[in-house]
Amino acid sequence: MDIAVLGTGSVGRAVAGRLHSLGHAVVVGTRDPQATLARTEPDGMGNPPFATWHADHEGVGLAAFADAAAGAELVVNASSGDVTLDVLRLAGAANLAGKVLVDIANPLDFSNGFPPTLFVKDTDSLGEQVQRAFPEARVVKTLNTLTAALMVDPAALGAPSTVFVSGDDATAKALVTDLLTSFGHEDVIDLGGIDTARGTEMLLPVWLRLMGALGTAQFNFHVVR
Amino acid sequence: MDIAVLGTGSVGRAVAGRLHSLGHAVVVGTRDPQATLARTEPDGMGNPPFATWHADHEGVGLAAFADAAAGAELVVNASSGDVTLDVLRLAGAANLAGKVLVDIANPLDFSNGFPPTLFVKDTDSLGEQVQRAFPEARVVKTLNTLTAALMVDPAALGAPSTVFVSGDDATAKALVTDLLTSFGHEDVIDLGGIDTARGTEMLLPVWLRLMGALGTAQFNFHVVR
Repeated sequence: MDIAVLGTGSVGRAVAGRLHSLGHAVVVGTRDPQATLARTEPDGMGNPPFATWHADHEGVGLAAFADAAAGAELVVNASSGDVTLDVLRLAGAANLAGKVLVDIANPLDFSNGFPPTLFVKDTDSLGEQVQRAFPEARVVKTLNTLTAALMVDPAALGAPSTVFVSGDDATAKALVTDLLTSFGHEDVIDLGGIDTARGTEMLLPVWLRLMGALGTAQFNFHVVR
Repeated sequence: MDIAVLGTGSVGRAVAGRLHSLGHAVVVGTRDPQATLARTEPDGMGNPPFATWHADHEGVGLAAFADAAAGAELVVNASSGDVTLDVLRLAGAANLAGKVLVDIANPLDFSNGFPPTLFVKDTDSLGEQVQRAFPEARVVKTLNTLTAALMVDPAALGAPSTVFVSGDDATAKALVTDLLTSFGHEDVIDLGGIDTARGTEMLLPVWLRLMGALGTAQFNFHVVR
């Protein structure tokens, strides 16, 4: 499948690399490809420069957000939650219309330090904001409840764990569930409409505190039933 | 141990019954014991009248909140979150001072229908409100992330799952962890101070949506790592 992954951080890299290794044609979207490749310092989250990662993943394309989205059948939003709506506007509503839009972002607000709070919660969610802003996109919220490395390789935990899908389009959720299965996810729970993203986004506060208590991000929730 | 369980709903009954069966001396606290025993209709959550339950648990005492708390070494708050601070005021600060106060309540607001929202979140928690209101109590937040039957019998799931403790008093958390172990909890994660209750209370929105998606409350999270 032709897939655009919007975002060059750890989530974008993990998802793009995994999709490429599974045989998909992947283009990473960024604001300014030349500027992205020219950076030589780690990014704000401590990730090595994108060019370093890209040198090991030559088969993955890099393009401006709109160009990446225009050529894709499926678009993954791997941008930070605080810029997600801007990034998707740059990608262009016309380039998202009718397509499955996988939203991995979390509405984290770091303005008051760590752990971050959520800038939307309980009566709305970032997933719903994305769906409202791009009504012709078929938004599926997923993978926002675990660290990037485990999003694309849950088997690394050595025991089953759970991921969730939320969205208003059943066909889109089925397609995303197939992709998740191809990543190794054996337990995908369909929570319902995109409004159920309120639940998975509000999982972040305990996730962040677990990361602190356990001293690692290499964990995931398994819904035992 | 002499234990008071404040609250006569499904959580209070489950915890009181289990503690009694484990050999503790248990008194359930309520506003007006005579009125509680006189009720013949199911309560607002559909539970049978308390008297019906009490007839099967004759060894468990019933007393006014203050009397129950006065005679206890450890107090369990099993009241609804919206009345928790009122219930604890009726129990009396002097009757809680120096004691371990196990807080199971969730700050659920049903005023806008189902699923409920949270009346405190992200920048505060009910656990912290309880600790601030009763600074001499040794508050431990726990068990608010699973259904009553599984709180006291997690083995019923047939696979390991996780519960959390949050609190500022390490000795209190150790005592509560021992109680949790006696219930059958094999994986108790200490998240840190009482402020980490923000994380476990904000787990409720996804818990509520999982209950809807799975059609049952008989599930729990296992933190796989």
